Amino acid sequence: MTLRVDLNCDMGESFGAYQIGADDEVFPHITSANVACGFHGGDPSVMRRTVERAKQHGVAVGAHPGFPDLIGFGRRNMDVSPEDVYDLMVYQIGALLGVAHAAGVELQHVKAHGALYNMAAVKAELAGAIARAVRDVDRQLVLFGLPGSFLISEGESAGLVTACEAFADRNYMRDGTLVSRKRADAHVHDAGDAAGRAVRMVRDRTVRAVDGEEIPIRADTICIHGDGPNAARFVQALRSAFADADIDVRAIGRSNAR
Amino acid sequence: MTLRVDLNCDMGESFGAYQIGADDEVFPHITSANVACGFHGGDPSVMRRTVERAKQHGVAVGAHPGFPDLIGFGRRNMDVSPEDVYDLMVYQIGALLGVAHAAGVELQHVKAHGALYNMAAVKAELAGAIARAVRDVDRQLVLFGLPGSFLISEGESAGLVTACEAFADRNYMRDGTLVSRKRADAHVHDAGDAAGRAVRMVRDRTVRAVDGEEIPIRADTICIHGDGPNAARFVQALRSAFADADIDVRAIGRSNAR
Amino acid sequence: MTLRVDLNCDMGESFGAYQIGADDEVFPHITSANVACGFHGGDPSVMRRTVERAKQHGVAVGAHPGFPDLIGFGRRNMDVSPEDVYDLMVYQIGALLGVAHAAGVELQHVKAHGALYNMAAVKAELAGAIARAVRDVDRQLVLFGLPGSFLISEGESAGLVTACEAFADRNYMRDGTLVSRKRADAHVHDAGDAAGRAVRMVRDRTVRAVDGEEIPIRADTICIHGDGPNAARFVQALRSAFADADIDVRAIGRSNAR
Amino acid sequence: MTLRVDLNCDMGESFGAYQIGADDEVFPHITSANVACGFHGGDPSVMRRTVERAKQHGVAVGAHPGFPDLIGFGRRNMDVSPEDVYDLMVYQIGALLGVAHAAGVELQHVKAHGALYNMAAVKAELAGAIARAVRDVDRQLVLFGLPGSFLISEGESAGLVTACEAFADRNYMRDGTLVSRKRADAHVHDAGDAAGRAVRMVRDRTVRAVDGEEIPIRADTICIHGDGPNAARFVQALRSAFADADIDVRAIGRSNAR
Repeated sequence: MTLRVDLNCDMGESFGAYQIGADDEVFPHITSANVACGFHGGDPSVMRRTVERAKQHGVAVGAHPGFPDLIGFGRRNMDVSPEDVYDLMVYQIGALLGVAHAAGVELQHVKAHGALYNMAAVKAELAGAIARAVRDVDRQLVLFGLPGSFLISEGESAGLVTACEAFADRNYMRDGTLVSRKRADAHVHDAGDAAGRAVRMVRDRTVRAVDGEEIPIRADTICIHGDGPNAARFVQALRSAFADADIDVRAIGRSNAR
Repeated sequence: MTLRVDLNCDMGESFGAYQIGADDEVFPHITSANVACGFHGGDPSVMRRTVERAKQHGVAVGAHPGFPDLIGFGRRNMDVSPEDVYDLMVYQIGALLGVAHAAGVELQHVKAHGALYNMAAVKAELAGAIARAVRDVDRQLVLFGLPGSFLISEGESAGLVTACEAFADRNYMRDGTLVSRKRADAHVHDAGDAAGRAVRMVRDRTVRAVDGEEIPIRADTICIHGDGPNAARFVQALRSAFADADIDVRAIGRSNAR
Repeated sequence: MTLRVDLNCDMGESFGAYQIGADDEVFPHITSANVACGFHGGDPSVMRRTVERAKQHGVAVGAHPGFPDLIGFGRRNMDVSPEDVYDLMVYQIGALLGVAHAAGVELQHVKAHGALYNMAAVKAELAGAIARAVRDVDRQLVLFGLPGSFLISEGESAGLVTACEAFADRNYMRDGTLVSRKRADAHVHDAGDAAGRAVRMVRDRTVRAVDGEEIPIRADTICIHGDGPNAARFVQALRSAFADADIDVRAIGRSNAR
Repeated sequence: MTLRVDLNCDMGESFGAYQIGADDEVFPHITSANVACGFHGGDPSVMRRTVERAKQHGVAVGAHPGFPDLIGFGRRNMDVSPEDVYDLMVYQIGALLGVAHAAGVELQHVKAHGALYNMAAVKAELAGAIARAVRDVDRQLVLFGLPGSFLISEGESAGLVTACEAFADRNYMRDGTLVSRKRADAHVHDAGDAAGRAVRMVRDRTVRAVDGEEIPIRADTICIHGDGPNAARFVQALRSAFADADIDVRAIGRSNAR
């Protein structure tokens, strides 16, 4: 059977006059776009243009809701209740649903952003709130999460199809969590290295952790970063490596759950 | 044939710790709720609670999108482009759509809020942007607007069902526009007077303008104000008067357009 | 020597169309106003009106800066860096300084709001950032804090005059911290009880903790809550009790430090 | 007598993760920085870093307050009252005053931003509100404005020192107003042309309007734009041209008014 993987990227994080990310360069190479929903980044016009561009490129669209913290770009933990999280997820997924309706596009997935993603990975009650919010808005949405995290287990408990996400350009701890961004070795800087790691994640279902150990990993979708000057070169390296390894790069697709 | 009318009220305008409006008192008496969508008022949790309460009371739910101006409560004109308006409408209607999905409720209508409503009433290109936004998100939504305004004509051009809105507690100019809030005689203060006017609007299709002239008016839905200490008493007076006049008070209902 | 105490209250927390608090009823009875600075509450117009009212009543004015979280009213912990805290303090104190200049009033003090106050009480590096921000804007400002907290010790290390704050209507743990708002016994509900406790705090320098133990407390300034229907009755009860006990109620006053 | 002119530029308009402008390249070449104050751009940390950099470069610091419209970058007209304008000016000037105090820098001037600047230029009551706000916060601040505009006349009525601002890279109408940004010929694109125009503005007190007519202009300070790839090259061309023409480039300086 042919191996396959989805390539996702955070898109549409510009805001008003502020441009961020290399969306135009990245869009031709990815299969799923995580679209910011106006809280940590993105605004209603940026969202529309991003969804329209995704449609032109045949890229699947997902919601990328975050904390209401534009100054902190949604990267600062906030002491929110599960109810807070449920409500801010429903609101932001809904906002993108409106944009998607208007563009004649169906939403494929939801991926929480930044601090919300990281907090929910390790707090079952937040992950549960996210999963319920996704299910209650549209149960055919696929929930993205770190393999082994509460996002995956709570997503499954809520009856959602989930997709395990791996990071081609991040180093891993032996327990499968990401090396903290605060450490100097958080990132894999070489595009070739990252591409090689991505292929092994999909083909061999392993990754070499930061301590040298090979650890198991499940990678239904691989996240690449869309900012920085090398974003396009990076994603092109991955596409080449996947092509060489006969790995099919294709969007996850909506769930058939009802 | 029995006469009928819808009674709508702006609901869910509280924000975080800030309470505004007498929603609990008003809900039992209205048939359509215009729910604030987070820009001029409302927040994701307030929206959820408001939609849930509407559902409990059998009140139809509509979106009430406004300018991104919380300090000004959406009441200050902003020099926005039609594209800005389209995008902020789609976003806010979408957000409420998410909340409605999660609550198992269908949206019935859209009513622009405050300065956006007033600007669009007299600017065809803004009204057109609003109408297209509503149609593109869900063409079965009914668009509320002042009779004779561009909201009604542009809504019809876009293929939407529209509902003409009258105000029981506002005075009218001879040309059918509202007396400006800046004038002392903008409002009808007596609940009995307002109720009498409302009945005549529905039964006789007229209202006495501020200069004493009887003018024609179409009132598919009558707006009452949900703030102030007398909101509940006010709406009860209307209900009694409608009952006495054998006027059926009933939600507009979703359009059947496809 | 006559005993003395300052009575402070959080004021000016309204925002745009949203009214909160009973400022008009409370102003005649307090000696120091903690004025919200636009992040968790307050807006530029509310700030001006609050400072003008304080001036009319001869009430000393202080800044009450909080987290940029209007939805959460500044009550949700945010994972901010000391540098973030320094910057948001400087900005907000400065904003109120502008308002105070325009009103011809000198700022007396600074009291961090909500989650920021509570986090800084137990995190030295955040308290240090607050103290440096206050000192760098105006070293004659007095820093308010919970006795025994890092706000007091870091304030003193920064060369500031500090004022220990006690809460007449909150229960205390045996270690001098406040009983969490999540507990049912967080508050003292009876105005007479609260007044009696306040007098003992000032006169005897003790308070009865929630476990019945008498614990020492230093109360340079006593905080009363300005919201709720009983705010005015509450503060009047305190004023009566202080008068009966011959305790002088007077603002802290600016520091003479240079 | 040696001719002199001030060179000002809008600085510190970045926000959180969003970078805008070429501040680092421009700072060595200007004499006055208009620092965004958090409403249309800028955040508390950006403001601190901008003021610190200005200090390092010996560049005078001024406040650049704008409308509370981050999405629109303060460039959309808002229907604000004079009182609204007074309050938002005081707040923002104050916020920068706090930052300046903390950095050991005195504020030199105030320049309204974007739509607020343009509206106040032609509406006396808004210009008057701005002038009073500046005076009430610190009467030694110099108010920048378009020559012939209400900002200059109302500034003088309020007893402020004013500085007339010309734009090296903008075309002028015959009446001395700027060609609208909506027109294709709004800007002067060639750095050499702009530099030549700037020299003539200072030396000859004239500029060639878009219709070819030479019109009189007063240029106490010349504004250059700090964004775009060519900002640094542009300002260097001006500096060279001023040096060749023996025009001294120097900050306006604080007023001595008391």
